[in-house]
This record gives sequence, structure tokens and C-alpha cells, in this order.
Amino acid sequence: MELSLNQIAELLDGEVFGDLEKIIRDVAPFETANDNQITFADSARFYKNLERTAAGAVIVPRKVKAADKNIVKVDNHKAAFARLMDVYHPAAKPKTGIRSTAVVGKNFKCGKDVSIAPMVVIGNNVSLGHGVILYPGVVIGDNVLIGDETKIYPNVTVQENCRLGNRVIIHAGTVIGSDGYGFVAEGESYRKIPQLGFVQIDDDVEIGACNTIDRATFGKTWIQRGVKTDNLVHIAHNVTVGKNTVIVAQTGIAGSSTIGNQATLAAQVGIGGHVHVGDNVMIGARGGVTKSVANGEIVSGFPEIPHRLWLKVQRIIPRLPEIKKKLAIVEKRLKKLEEKLD
Amino acid sequence: MELSLNQIAELLDGEVFGDLEKIIRDVAPFETANDNQITFADSARFYKNLERTAAGAVIVPRKVKAADKNIVKVDNHKAAFARLMDVYHPAAKPKTGIRSTAVVGKNFKCGKDVSIAPMVVIGNNVSLGHGVILYPGVVIGDNVLIGDETKIYPNVTVQENCRLGNRVIIHAGTVIGSDGYGFVAEGESYRKIPQLGFVQIDDDVEIGACNTIDRATFGKTWIQRGVKTDNLVHIAHNVTVGKNTVIVAQTGIAGSSTIGNQATLAAQVGIGGHVHVGDNVMIGARGGVTKSVANGEIVSGFPEIPHRLWLKVQRIIPRLPEIKKKLAIVEKRLKKLEEKLD
Amino acid sequence: MELSLNQIAELLDGEVFGDLEKIIRDVAPFETANDNQITFADSARFYKNLERTAAGAVIVPRKVKAADKNIVKVDNHKAAFARLMDVYHPAAKPKTGIRSTAVVGKNFKCGKDVSIAPMVVIGNNVSLGHGVILYPGVVIGDNVLIGDETKIYPNVTVQENCRLGNRVIIHAGTVIGSDGYGFVAEGESYRKIPQLGFVQIDDDVEIGACNTIDRATFGKTWIQRGVKTDNLVHIAHNVTVGKNTVIVAQTGIAGSSTIGNQATLAAQVGIGGHVHVGDNVMIGARGGVTKSVANGEIVSGFPEIPHRLWLKVQRIIPRLPEIKKKLAIVEKRLKKLEEKLD
Repeated sequence: MELSLNQIAELLDGEVFGDLEKIIRDVAPFETANDNQITFADSARFYKNLERTAAGAVIVPRKVKAADKNIVKVDNHKAAFARLMDVYHPAAKPKTGIRSTAVVGKNFKCGKDVSIAPMVVIGNNVSLGHGVILYPGVVIGDNVLIGDETKIYPNVTVQENCRLGNRVIIHAGTVIGSDGYGFVAEGESYRKIPQLGFVQIDDDVEIGACNTIDRATFGKTWIQRGVKTDNLVHIAHNVTVGKNTVIVAQTGIAGSSTIGNQATLAAQVGIGGHVHVGDNVMIGARGGVTKSVANGEIVSGFPEIPHRLWLKVQRIIPRLPEIKKKLAIVEKRLKKLEEKLD
Repeated sequence: MELSLNQIAELLDGEVFGDLEKIIRDVAPFETANDNQITFADSARFYKNLERTAAGAVIVPRKVKAADKNIVKVDNHKAAFARLMDVYHPAAKPKTGIRSTAVVGKNFKCGKDVSIAPMVVIGNNVSLGHGVILYPGVVIGDNVLIGDETKIYPNVTVQENCRLGNRVIIHAGTVIGSDGYGFVAEGESYRKIPQLGFVQIDDDVEIGACNTIDRATFGKTWIQRGVKTDNLVHIAHNVTVGKNTVIVAQTGIAGSSTIGNQATLAAQVGIGGHVHVGDNVMIGARGGVTKSVANGEIVSGFPEIPHRLWLKVQRIIPRLPEIKKKLAIVEKRLKKLEEKLD
Repeated sequence: MELSLNQIAELLDGEVFGDLEKIIRDVAPFETANDNQITFADSARFYKNLERTAAGAVIVPRKVKAADKNIVKVDNHKAAFARLMDVYHPAAKPKTGIRSTAVVGKNFKCGKDVSIAPMVVIGNNVSLGHGVILYPGVVIGDNVLIGDETKIYPNVTVQENCRLGNRVIIHAGTVIGSDGYGFVAEGESYRKIPQLGFVQIDDDVEIGACNTIDRATFGKTWIQRGVKTDNLVHIAHNVTVGKNTVIVAQTGIAGSSTIGNQATLAAQVGIGGHVHVGDNVMIGARGGVTKSVANGEIVSGFPEIPHRLWLKVQRIIPRLPEIKKKLAIVEKRLKKLEEKLD
């Protein structure tokens, strides 16, 4: 694909400084881009050193001053570059239609231009919106509803009664709608508590690879609009995750907890059961949350403490041997003084 | 389904106080139940406030006094309610038979009323008991033995020579019988140690979604009767997990360790290799066990310490900056005194 | 299979002390081996107590003195025993050929003696080397290249453009080439950053079950020769893992980090983004690495500190309540002295 900088600026609602007719054939990282490619300057470190890239043009924030380079000024340079990546490399669309080796249940409803790969198995009473893509090995249970333009990668399982919105992406190997972990002691053994609810995943959610999102005991486990999860994330029964919250890899959320909107759960976090994590909360990597966290707080550690305090504590912990030694010396000196004064 | 309270009490071996003929059409949670539904009072907070539910009846412990509500007194109110959930919502049974798109190996033995879904692949010399359910995408290796009424959810892999008992449930995406992680250094690289053993899973075990349970190097990795694992649990080669032990999400157990009966491993726990965790042990969330733990102990932290001590320690850790400061002040005051006395 | 000790010694480049003609029919562990079996003495504890095994012969290091047992002295007794395990129990090879229920895309290239199981789905422009084994439910995306003798276990997904070398083993349920976790804020929501790169896995790598290895944003996520990962490991986009590095279960490596050669990441480790972990580094179990680690260092804890310091710190942490109490006593005694001297 070929676009002039002028065309690119129009696409991105940006302003070109330099050669308007410069032809750009691809996107590339700052360090490796060549004269046919456009890149972006991630931060001041990059846009104050534009001579360091061989790119034919650079996307920069509005505030950047003119330079010896061709630059395209935009409001959100990172988002603009991501949009351009999509333009030069549109997502591959598998052939539309239902492959002959897919198995589809009774009472199947389905929009236009769906693509159902070989070895997909779809239960009864399933409804798919327009443009849905199901990759090989996907298993869809009975009574599942899926919206428009949703894409499900290979070997994903979506179990009965679950509901997925529009433009949802589910990465490979993930399980949606496994039973919640509910048991009740009965003598020395445990009786299973039937898990009668479902999982609802709203529009524009992206779920990473090998996630496990359990169905609710009653009602729903609910992943709200715009949530993004990384790989190997566990979300237990009856959890609600609020809009545009991001959950980084290997995090687990225990049963019946609720996470607010625009929250950030960094990697390897654990959220205990029956707690509420507020809007805009940030949990540092490996934080273990045992109590509810108010809107806007930044916490780390296990159990969670304010992030700033945690940073101080983390600096002291390696000095514990020294503190212990100092205390022992203090005790000796004190004893000496006491004896002197006796 | 319609049952009178009288019929329900008979089912549960309970006693009705109130309207024996009251018709109940469903089960529901305390907060959302309506007059056609029965619920249960989880704890004193609920059964001392029975007026707070709109349920047509409430299942309560024997000790609860008569109330303005219809109540059903039973010995184990949680287990009774779980039983009732099963009565009103019996688990869906897929059609029996072997779907035409399933592939079955040589020398296949199989009980009555099995249900083998599309895209299931079964190796040679496999034996299934009565009523086994294999969901789509399940792969069963050669020489696998599976007991009666066992249910294996979509995209699960059970590799060669593994043995599953009766009424076992394996949730979606799980892998049973992957190779143990065994290597031996040979110069700068590693030689694989062949993993010649298998995995044995006894009766009434339930394994969560996306678990990995490795085969033994020699002999067996053994999950004993009644064990329940949550999602994303890792169990390494040659581990034994004792009867009715529960293992919460994202826990890992390293090679050759043994866990006793009725133990509880909370979420995100790690158990080191070659240790023994005793019967009735409880490991707190995120506990990291490096040595053997005696029967009945309750431990937390990494490395593990008694849970009560850990609670104290956890309260002090955020106060470390304060302790450090106090110690510095003490040192100064001490110095002053020493100088005075010199 | 029957081999004389003489034949075994030739195979292993070893030296027999005892009955050269002794026939050995199998390999077995030290504790359970019988007179027809050979075992190995793992460490001094075993080879100084050779009378404790009933094995017909024992493989031992060269330095071990002659004994009442038949022994075979070799340079690397563990590797020698692993080789013998392979001799007596060669890995099962599924039937060669492409099963009729596998689906293969356009422009498929394929070496000799491949084995493609039922329900395998292979995209367009895929190339497989000689002797490749694809187990049931494996999904291979478009433009994937796979070398000779590579083995991919059931329900693994290898997405488009990824490259696997020779003699690679991928265990069941693993996902290679899922999208990197890349998003850019756009108002209150997030825009997906397209992930245009791929994953390259070099020769002799073994990847555990239910791993997730993300494709690069640009370029490649790179797992170099001889790397071995355990189960449930997460490797993010643009990570490089150096040669012969071992990564134990449930470890996660964040985006753009590089790990050197011959490093060891113990279980449940976390490596932050954009850091470099040097050659021969060892990270203790549960270590959380936030900064780059120089070649040869041994670190533990979160954030990481030298392992020896961490051991000291770990011994002090349970004594914090005692330290706090001692400090309070010191303060009181000090106050008394100060009053006396006032």
C-alpha cells in the first residue's frame, strides 16, 4: 500500500511539516524504520532525537517543534500510529461461510459474512451476529448469544448460556463459562454447588489466551464494555469487572468481587473474594488485595497498602539484618549505661 | 418443576414450619428470591433477618427458631440447598451415542449411555464406563481408562495411560498427563528425562479449567478421591494429593510432593518439591511452602510460618519506616547520654 | 527388551564392575527396582548405600568405588540413565500419514514420515519438516514453518507466521502466537495496537502445557535453542529467552524483556517489562524482577535482592514482632535513664 503524507495526515486528522507528497509504504519501529516507512516518537526521548531514526516520516504530538524530518503532528500520536498499523496491515479475514467440517446444532441463527472454521462445534439455539469469526477448534455451547464482528481464536470454549457482545476478541485456549468453584462440606467430603448462572461479556472486550472465566452460581459473571485482559487470567464466579479496566497477566480475582471502571490490575495480582475495588484504582504488580479499595487509590503489597508506603517498605526490607544488628548494639550500649548509673 | 414444601422437606429429610402445601417452583439467592422460590439462610446474619427475603420459603439450620416465614429446618442447610438446586436444575445431559464426527481407535470398550460429542478423538485400547460424557474437542490418548458417569468438558486432553475414576469432572481446557518437567544437564544443554508414568484420578474428583497435571516419571501422579481443584492449577510429576483436599486457583505444586487428606491450599499458593503437607493443613492465600508441614497446621507467608504469627508480621511490615525512624532516634538519644556520662 | 550389562556399558560409554552377562530387562527407580532392572544412584546418599536397592545393576558416577552390586560407571550418571530410559521405552510414534479428518490448507509442503492426527487443522502456506507429529486438535495458522522431528501435543494452537525449529516439543493446550497485550488509551477506552510480528522457537526447545507465548508487535518474540519451559508459563510480546534457559511453572515474563543464556527462572517468578536478565542468572522461586540483573547473579525476593541477603531477611521477618517489642522496651529504658540524668 502507498499513501502520501498528505493522505496520512487526512486519515489521522494531523498536520504535515515537510514533504506532503512523500510516499509511505509501511509502518515500522523507530529504530528499524527506513525511508519508505513511517514511525512514531513514543516520548520526549524520541521526539527530541528525531535524527536517530531513518524513517521517511515520524508521527509526533502537536507540541513538537518543526524538525529536519518529515513529521505529522496529531493529538494522540500513539493511537494515531496504531490506526496506521491497521491501515497498512488490516487484520486477516478468513474466508466467509461455514466450513463443511464444522458441526452446527439446531435452531442456529447467524448474521451476514460469518466465518466458521473447520472443526468448530456449535450447540443448539446459538445466535451469531454479522461478521463473526470462529477459528478452528472453537466450541460454542447451547443457547450462546454472540454479537457482531466478534472474533474467537482457536480452541476456545464458550459454554452454555454465555453472552458475548459486539467486537469482542477472545484469544486462543480460553475458557468462558466453566463452573464456579463452589462446594459445601458434607461430612469429610464436599458436595458440588450447581453453577446455574452464565458469563456476560460486553462490547469491545478483549480476553487474552488461556483465561478462565467462570459462570455465576446464580445470575452472571460480568465483564463490562472495553475490558482488556492479558494471558492466564482467572476470573471467578459472580465477579463484575467494570468498563475499560485492564487486567495484566496471571492475575486472579476470587468469587463475588467487583472491580470498578478504568481500574488497572498489574501482573500476578490477586483479589480476594467479596471485596470491591473502586473506579480508577491501580493495583501494583503482585499486589494481593484482601479488603475493599476506595476509588482512585493506588495500592501494592500483600495485604495491600498505599503504593508510596509500599515503596518505602520495600527499601527497608533488605536492610532488616542491619536494623536487627543496630538494635542489638543499642541494647548493649544501654545496658552499659544502666550499669554505670546503678 | 413444582414441589410443595412438604415434598421438599421429605427430599431433604427436613421439617417444615409454615405452609406445608406451599408450592415452590425454583431456587434463588436470598436477595432476589420471590414468593415462588425457595432460598437458604447462609449464616446468622441471614436467618436472624428472614423478613429481608421475599422468598416463599427459606432453608435454615435446625437451631433456628420458628419465624413469620415458611422455613424448612435441616441438618446441613447449605448442602440441602445445593441438593435442591440439582433437583430444580438437573445438569444438562447431551444426547447419548457417539457422534459421527468423533474418531475412535482400535479395541474400544464402552459402557451404556455414553455421550461422545463431535470432534472427540479417542486413541487405541480406551475403556469408558457407563454414562461417560465427552464434550467436543476432547482428546483421549491410548490406553486410557475412565470410570462411570465421568464428565469431560470441551478441549480437554487426557494423555496415554492415564486413569480416571467414577463421577470425575474435568473442566474445559485442562491437560492431564503432560510430561513431567524433568531434565538433566549435559554440557551446556539439557537432556530430557523420559516421563514413563501416568496420572491417576480417583472417584469424585473435580478438576478446574486449564489445569495442568503432569504424568509421573515412574509410577503415578495421584489425585485421590474427592479432591477439588479450581482453575489454572499446576500439579507436577509424582505428586500425590490426598482425599478431599481442596486447591484454589493458580496454585502450583512442585514435583514429588505429597499433600495429605482434607487439606486446604488457598489461592496462588506454591508448594516446593519433595515436601509433605499433612492432613487437615491449611495454607493461606499466596503461602509458599518450602518445608514439610505437620498435620493440622495453619501456615501462611513465604517461607511459610504459623498463620497467627504471619498476621502479626503483616501488621508490622507497613510500620517498618516508623520502626527504622524510631531506632535512629534511639541511637541519637543514646549517644547524647553516653556523651553526658563520659 | 533385553540387554546385557556389557551392551549397556557400550551404549553409555561406561565400565561394568560385576557380571558383564547380567541381563537387564527394564529401567526403574532405586527404591522399587528388581533384579531384572537397572537403576541409578542419584547422589552420595544412594551410591554409598547400594545395598538398599534390589536392582540387578546400578549406574553410578566414575568416582564410586567397586561394590557388592553390579555397577556401571559413567561420566554423567543421570544423563546416562535418561538415555537408557529412552532405549527401553522409546517414545510412541503415532502412525505416519495424514488422517482423513485432518484439514490442510493450500500450498502445503511437508517432509517424509509426518504424522497428522484426526481433527488437526492446518492453514495455507504451511511447511512441515520430516517426521513432524501433530496430535489431535492441533491448529496451525497460515504461513507457519515447522522443522524436522518436531512434536506438537493435542489442542495446541500455533498462530499465523510463527516459526518452529527442529526437535521442538510443544505440550498440550499451549498457545503460540497470541496477540501481545498492547493497547493505547484513547479517551476513557483503549485502542488495540495491532500485533504484526511473530514467534520464533529454535531447535530443541520444549514448551510445557498451557503456556502462552505472544507474538511480537513488530519483529519476533524469540525462544532460543534448548530452552525448556514448565507448565502455565506466560511469555509476552517481543521477549527474547536465551539458549538453554529453564523457566519453571507459572512464571511470567513481561513485554520486551530479554533473558540471557543458561539462566534459571524458578517457579512463580515474575520478570517486569523492558529489563535484561543476564546469562547464568538464577532467580529464586517467586522472585519478582523489576530491574536488569547482571550475568551470573543469584537473586530472590520482590523486588529482587541478592539471594544470600534474601535468606537472611527471610529469617528476620518472622521475628519482626519480637524486634518491635524490643525496640519499645529500649525506648522505655532509655527514657528512664534520661530522667535520671535530667
